[in-house]
Amino acid sequence: MSLPKSDLTKQADGRTTMELGAVLPKTAEVRGGHLFIGSVDMVQLAREQGTALYVFDEADLRDRMEQYREAFHECYPNSEALYASKAFLNKEVLRIAHEEGMFLDVSGGGELACARAVGFPMERVFVHGNNKTEAELREAIGAGVARIVLDTRLELARVSRIAGELGVTQKVLMRITPGVEADTHEYIKTGCEDSKFGFTMLEDFAFKCVGDVMGASNVELVGFHCHIGSQIFALHSFAEAVQVMVEFAARVRDEYGLVIEDLDMGGGLGIAYTVDEQPSSIRDFAECTANAVMEACTEHNLPLPRLLVEPGRSLVANAGVTLYKVGVMKTLPNIRKYVAIDGGMSDNIRTALYDAAYEATIANKADQPRTEIVTLCGKHCESGDAVVLDGSLQRADLDDIVCVFGTGAYCYTMSSSYNGQPRPAIVFVRDGEARVVTRRETYDDLMARDV
Amino acid sequence: MSLPKSDLTKQADGRTTMELGAVLPKTAEVRGGHLFIGSVDMVQLAREQGTALYVFDEADLRDRMEQYREAFHECYPNSEALYASKAFLNKEVLRIAHEEGMFLDVSGGGELACARAVGFPMERVFVHGNNKTEAELREAIGAGVARIVLDTRLELARVSRIAGELGVTQKVLMRITPGVEADTHEYIKTGCEDSKFGFTMLEDFAFKCVGDVMGASNVELVGFHCHIGSQIFALHSFAEAVQVMVEFAARVRDEYGLVIEDLDMGGGLGIAYTVDEQPSSIRDFAECTANAVMEACTEHNLPLPRLLVEPGRSLVANAGVTLYKVGVMKTLPNIRKYVAIDGGMSDNIRTALYDAAYEATIANKADQPRTEIVTLCGKHCESGDAVVLDGSLQRADLDDIVCVFGTGAYCYTMSSSYNGQPRPAIVFVRDGEARVVTRRETYDDLMARDV
Repeated sequence: MSLPKSDLTKQADGRTTMELGAVLPKTAEVRGGHLFIGSVDMVQLAREQGTALYVFDEADLRDRMEQYREAFHECYPNSEALYASKAFLNKEVLRIAHEEGMFLDVSGGGELACARAVGFPMERVFVHGNNKTEAELREAIGAGVARIVLDTRLELARVSRIAGELGVTQKVLMRITPGVEADTHEYIKTGCEDSKFGFTMLEDFAFKCVGDVMGASNVELVGFHCHIGSQIFALHSFAEAVQVMVEFAARVRDEYGLVIEDLDMGGGLGIAYTVDEQPSSIRDFAECTANAVMEACTEHNLPLPRLLVEPGRSLVANAGVTLYKVGVMKTLPNIRKYVAIDGGMSDNIRTALYDAAYEATIANKADQPRTEIVTLCGKHCESGDAVVLDGSLQRADLDDIVCVFGTGAYCYTMSSSYNGQPRPAIVFVRDGEARVVTRRETYDDLMARDV
Repeated sequence: MSLPKSDLTKQADGRTTMELGAVLPKTAEVRGGHLFIGSVDMVQLAREQGTALYVFDEADLRDRMEQYREAFHECYPNSEALYASKAFLNKEVLRIAHEEGMFLDVSGGGELACARAVGFPMERVFVHGNNKTEAELREAIGAGVARIVLDTRLELARVSRIAGELGVTQKVLMRITPGVEADTHEYIKTGCEDSKFGFTMLEDFAFKCVGDVMGASNVELVGFHCHIGSQIFALHSFAEAVQVMVEFAARVRDEYGLVIEDLDMGGGLGIAYTVDEQPSSIRDFAECTANAVMEACTEHNLPLPRLLVEPGRSLVANAGVTLYKVGVMKTLPNIRKYVAIDGGMSDNIRTALYDAAYEATIANKADQPRTEIVTLCGKHCESGDAVVLDGSLQRADLDDIVCVFGTGAYCYTMSSSYNGQPRPAIVFVRDGEARVVTRRETYDDLMARDV
């Protein structure tokens, strides 16, 4: 895989670090030319802990969790926000999510295991996945999770059987594909939705399956779930999906006599990866979603269900940054300028996988304007290995510390040890203190499973 | 990320497993309807070891290493094949590479550490990378590796300093970007090459740098390296690159008085991922490359250097397969048929990352024709999570064992534990015996680095 051609006409934006707006973690500031987060000097931290390094602004993380909780509770008292742990998972973030009163959304077995390891209350855990294994379902039901989100009829049979064997009744939601998909700026009413997830509304399939779920032994249907997409900027997409879901729930009430307890609208609120992006606030998202539910329920004369949302990216992406050290600069006249850092696709696959864009700054030149357009490439043996393509950056020198913003979600959880690269440590910073919450991988770790 | 639309006009190919040609590992056979590799029943193995599971045909792997060694030694006695460990790395594959007389190409620190752990002779190890860290260079030079492949002038200074501190003289190659790039079927003479790797020939930069390398203390320049691409089917691309490199070496002889010892032509030989692909044989690759070197050296009256090649994919890709269990089938009329397996983008990111294509069969229906077109999707919470898009497969039932071929390279080394999915075990099979060479990751492993 090679990189797309560099746009040689592109001009650096001349911004200093503090002019990068919504991509910055809440406590980002510049002191003496250095980037500080949580009152910790990122340059000194990088020198002490080594690079590549993930750093999380704990105040930012807690603040966003609080915003979710408060905004939803104010707009819609009977609501809960579930942290989508696939976005970023380690023990500490789950401890914090618990302290901040979040519920939890897990999908793979390792996510549930981590929740159990930190004592996350199982009555606050929802379990997702298009193909949960027999073992995962048994672990989840046995642990007493609050909800299994059913994805297929095959899974209904599996959950019913396992719950029966364990002698319990498992509360479940059905995941519905509502025929509303959102991309960043628009929603699309697809009518026919191509998704590996959930019960399709095509040919009224999902509706017909409601009866099967209601009739299954050891299973209690308590509501519906949908997820219309990721990185959504257009709030009206959520409102549109709410209308479809509430109408569905009203039909279920009318024809099956079942009044739902839970309406789970999934995740998807967009965040700022680049300085140009203007995401909606958590408050606006809460208002829009809550109002849509209240209006639709009024229209259909449906009692207000508990409203659930599942933020992941919008909680952790901007709280996290990655620090790297510059090892090589390479200018190819009229082609491209490369700045090579000591990480890359192993710790951040999103650029290669999704053409993701990020903002970066040089932490030890944080008060200087970004005057160059560079490609921030990694150290891996792969041409497509880059973290930022054609991004603005200060003029880089050897051993500069580069900070890439917005890497808190879907970087660490998707990280690999490609090229025998040990995975970075994770440091949480707060009030001038830095604490390692996940230690750096070692060479021995990499070989530990080899016989 | 969503999947490209399914091609509903596509017809299943009706092939049975043994009609899948070059994608099959050497010892693949069908007995009693089951796929066997290394005389081991893949269905039984999957049931015993669990899925997802990587399986390697040891006879195939050793055979390809032998083919490389023999073909190159016959066509060009002063030659060596280096196993490119980034393609697939664990202790056992390095032990086998050593037993089979291979040299070794490492790029990251963890690759070198693994080589040292199994006692791979350091005088057979070459070290690559566009941004080797200070620590990695110190480890490599200290360990006495055969060659450091220099990527930049910055690195020259680093290597010279470290070798000086360690009191040794380090033999080095210079990596050159020869202005020849190969895609699968053609070479492209780029003139100006956009690469993060190596010394560019633009403005005669590489040539001018030769003097710097020759003049550096504690460093001995012994040759040149290039790598023109991956998954190359057009052998003439290699011949074209050889001409450029030998001409360069002749100029270096003429103007600097240095006669090179080593010419390292990198890797890149294509393999069959799909039944339609017709890769060149290792023998043809050896003949083509060897002849090109001999002709070019004759033309330039240059003594024959040692010829090095760096196969990775063409050694291990087709020796390896992945076994999965079918957990869910979902047919969306006029849209797509999904078959969901218990792995996905965590163990094989190549489909999402490179639009890679693979062939699959149902191991317990291996003698049956593939009569359906399906999308083999994974279990991850991500719409783009698929291993095969619109591929032929037998009609799938619950708990069927699916075998995906050609997954020996760049799958395990790029694997993640996304969604808390433990990474699969790796089993080597041979002569009816199966041995676990890398054990399956556990939930505890996933949390082991969390404080």
